[in-house]
This record gives sequence, structure tokens and C-alpha cells, in this order.
Amino acid sequence: MLPAKVNIIEVGARDGLQNETAVTLVDKIRLINQLSSSGLKHIEAGSFVSPKWVPQMADSDQVFAGISQKPDVVYSALTPNLAGLERALESGVKRIAVFGSASEAFSQKNINCSIAESLSRFEPVIELAKQHNIPVRGYLSCTMVCPYEGNIKPEQTTAVANTLFDMGCYEISLGDTVGKATPNRVIAMLESLLTQLPKDALAVHFHDTYGQALANIYQALLMGINTIDSAVAGLGGCPYAKGASGNVATEDVLYLCEQLGIETGVDLNIINEAGWQICQALGKRPSSKVALALGDPHSL
Amino acid sequence: MLPAKVNIIEVGARDGLQNETAVTLVDKIRLINQLSSSGLKHIEAGSFVSPKWVPQMADSDQVFAGISQKPDVVYSALTPNLAGLERALESGVKRIAVFGSASEAFSQKNINCSIAESLSRFEPVIELAKQHNIPVRGYLSCTMVCPYEGNIKPEQTTAVANTLFDMGCYEISLGDTVGKATPNRVIAMLESLLTQLPKDALAVHFHDTYGQALANIYQALLMGINTIDSAVAGLGGCPYAKGASGNVATEDVLYLCEQLGIETGVDLNIINEAGWQICQALGKRPSSKVALALGDPHSL
Repeated sequence: MLPAKVNIIEVGARDGLQNETAVTLVDKIRLINQLSSSGLKHIEAGSFVSPKWVPQMADSDQVFAGISQKPDVVYSALTPNLAGLERALESGVKRIAVFGSASEAFSQKNINCSIAESLSRFEPVIELAKQHNIPVRGYLSCTMVCPYEGNIKPEQTTAVANTLFDMGCYEISLGDTVGKATPNRVIAMLESLLTQLPKDALAVHFHDTYGQALANIYQALLMGINTIDSAVAGLGGCPYAKGASGNVATEDVLYLCEQLGIETGVDLNIINEAGWQICQALGKRPSSKVALALGDPHSL
Repeated sequence: MLPAKVNIIEVGARDGLQNETAVTLVDKIRLINQLSSSGLKHIEAGSFVSPKWVPQMADSDQVFAGISQKPDVVYSALTPNLAGLERALESGVKRIAVFGSASEAFSQKNINCSIAESLSRFEPVIELAKQHNIPVRGYLSCTMVCPYEGNIKPEQTTAVANTLFDMGCYEISLGDTVGKATPNRVIAMLESLLTQLPKDALAVHFHDTYGQALANIYQALLMGINTIDSAVAGLGGCPYAKGASGNVATEDVLYLCEQLGIETGVDLNIINEAGWQICQALGKRPSSKVALALGDPHSL
């Protein structure tokens, strides 16, 4: 049963740009302001991680200072630890996210600690966020397939997701980090998760490396999932996962949902324009098929 | 209920290359021979249309003379009229296809006649093919969406498909020519068709212009459809339909089916190699996400 409405979480300015070296602060601010005018209600705007690890996000405080924040839009940031949260608080960030993995091997290689250790690091972050009335989103990578371990058992993902939820995350974003999952794995994962967690606490975050993201999102929609992470122009990738290309494109998700009769509240044309513009700044073409079909509004 | 097995109809050498001017006869023959060694059982190898209309296919007789035909592989050709069929017969072609439209406006613009006129032109073609024991496949374009008329009613598509079947076509290939359909339209179309035709007489032929092809194929598989047209490297497009980019890529379809546990009988690595090679000849990168993820085997 398809949902009547979906929430699109726009992750292009963070997950999308974290591997891009050529983006200026001005480009980022313009992108986020453009996205703000599209009807999107949640834009991930930056990441307060160590600049040593992700130098591309070192200017997140300036991004938050520079954007024109709309009162009905949430601008969130990734804060992997207490130091990050403190910087985020100084920047006035009102929603944060922590980032864990459903795969033990990926956790070790990506954040240099076990799943259990990563969860215990999140505890003080979530605690301090709570004191400031800041809702915390939980990302989980490799929820179905891990580049090191192969397939991840649905029970494993469910257990970690459940722990994050119990720790206070209002929503768990289920990542297909390497884009290798197919709809059968989406069914198995969600069937397991839905025995333990309410569907409104689940979001899907799929990469399109093997071209399967939209089929997987369609399957998630069929199971009532109503929160979808996507990135304008299909920006993104994961520096620690070989072959992980971009996030599923917001344009393609919007087209699918609109045609399925699912309300998104987002103006596809504004997203398309923002996508072409940031891609021009990056010196590349959008990865979104819908963007390519619609064309660049400034060159038509 | 997913099928246990699918037939992949490889249309790259015809539908894929019919808009490409830079392909030599040698390239075509090498491509088809490579595809022949992958386990594919049906390869569309050429088109006996007027060279005035599609000059890229003017060498189809030489293609059929040049390829090494395997006894367990069907090599088919498009024959829009009696003159085309006669040329195909001279080339020893053992399976043919005719090409109609579910959209009145598209029929007029694409083949310069009404649907009814096109069907009556097929009559002598199908009759002569029957005399030579040559099975005839029927293509239908714009089965869900037309670039001129917008959405096509499922009953309209069903009526034309039914007529083609009654005229003697063993299979109707249902085209989403402009790639604008989404899974809800696939459901509506197939539900209507399946009241009149056996599912084994239906194939899906989806273009990926809006990135929806794999979600649509997944929906068709869920309804038991077990024949899928696709093109190696996502080659193709339609010269008469604005914005119609390539066919869905064979690599991406194979990946989906394999992961869903559906038998294809086709070796993805051989298809991937063939795709990179023909793309090198064309001076472009594959449109297949799976091909990009796997990489060019000759440069690894």
C-alpha cells in the first residue's frame, strides 16, 4: 500500500558534496538557499566532523551562518561526536544526525571502531542533544550489503537500528551504501525491522551504483515507507566504499512519487534548476536521468 | 509472484545502434558474435527497413552474412513491410518483427499512417512469414505514454496488442518509448492485457529516459512477465521521439534478475565486456550503471 505523502530528506549538500573538492562556500550557500525554495522541509546542510577526515566539510559553520534559514525548513548536520555537536550548537544547528553501520567490518574500516563502540560514543552526543531539545537522526550504513562482509542479515540491521531508536534517535535512515541491494533484500530488511519499529521511524537512503535505487525505493514505498533520502542531481558517493557512486537523485525520486500519485510538496523544476547549477559549479553533468530529460533551464 | 526464469531479448545491435552513425559493419558483427557467446538466446541483429529512412541499418544483409550464427540462438530482424521481409528472407533470417504503435498520433508521426493502416500493411508480411515458418514478433510503441497524446489508455493498448496477436504475432513487445511510465501505469496496462492475452505472449521493452525502467521491469516481473527486452550498455533511443534516451541496459536487468534469484542463463561479465567494447567503438561510456560499477575488463 503506497503512502499518500512522502518526506524527502535532501542530502545533496552534505552526503553529495562531501567528496567534492571544487565547491566553494558560495556555491554551497546558493545551493542550500535554492533547495530551501523548492518546498523541501528537511535539508542536510553540513557535517561537523574533523576537518582532517573530511576537509570538504570544514566550512559547515560558515555554511550555517551564511544560508537564509526558512522557519518551516529543518537544516540538519552530521555530528559524529561530542566535539562535532558542540561546534554544531555554536552554529545554531537545530537537528543533528549520528552515523553508524550495520556491518562490523565497515564500522571498523569507516569509523575505526566496532559497532558497539560507535554506539557508546553516540550516547553522550544524544544526551547533550536531548538537553538542547535537538532531535537526533540515526544513519545506518551497509544495512543490506557490505563491501567487506557481503550480505548483512536483516536481524543484524534490525538489532542495531533498534538500539539507535532506543537510545533516542527519532528516525533511522537505512543506507544501501554500495548500491548493491535489490528489492528482495529491501523486503527482507523491512519485514524484519517492521516487527520492532514503527514505519514512521524508518527512512531509506539508497545509492544508485548498480542502478537499483529506484526499484528499491518503489519496493519500500509499497511497504508503506514514507521518508526517502535523496540528493539533488544524484550527487555523492562514499570515499570509503569502492565503487560507491552517487545517491539516488532527488529529481528521479520526485518524478516517481509524483507519477505514483504520492504527494511530495516539492517543486521538481526548482530542484532541477538547482541541480544543473551546482553541477555547473562542479564541472559535470547531473547523474539524474530526469534532469537530463528535462534539460538545463538556463540553456533551453 | 516473480518468474523463476526470464528470457532476455537483446536489442542493442538493432534498437541500440539504429541512431548511431559511427558504427562499422565490423563493429556490428563483432558485437553480435560477442553477445552470442553470453548465453543470450535471442539477439535482434538488424532491420530491413528502407535505407532512406534508417541508413544506419542499410548493411543488415551484410551483418547477417557476416555473423557466426549459433544453432541455439535466434537472430531476428525488423521487417516493416513486404519489401523488407523479402530482403530478410534472402539473408536467411529465421525470425522477424513488425513495428506498430498503441498511439494514433505516434503512428502517424513515426510511420506515416494510422494504426489501422499499419496493421493492414503487416497482414501480407505475417502471411508470407507464415508460409516460410517464420515466427513474427510484434512491437508496440507508446503503450503507456505518447510524446504527442500523453497517457494512452490501457484498453487502447490492449486492443492493438490483441489484434497483433490475432493476426499471428507470437509475442507482443510492449514499449515505453519515451521512458515516462512509472510502475502504476505498468500495473494498469498489464492488468488490462492479461485479461485478454496469456502472459507468455507479452514482453516489456522499456526505455530509461526518466530513470524508471528498472522499477517498471520489477513491477512487470512481480506480475509474472518473463520476457524482457534490453540493450547492452543501454544503447539506443528513438530518432522520432524527443528526449528518448537509451533502452534499459542489459547489464542492469541481468543484475536485478540474478539478485532476485531469477534465472537468466546469461553471463553478465561477457555482456559487460561486449558493452565496453561497442562503446569504445562509439566513443562513449556505457549508460549502464552496472557496467560503470564493474568497469571495463580491458582496462582493469
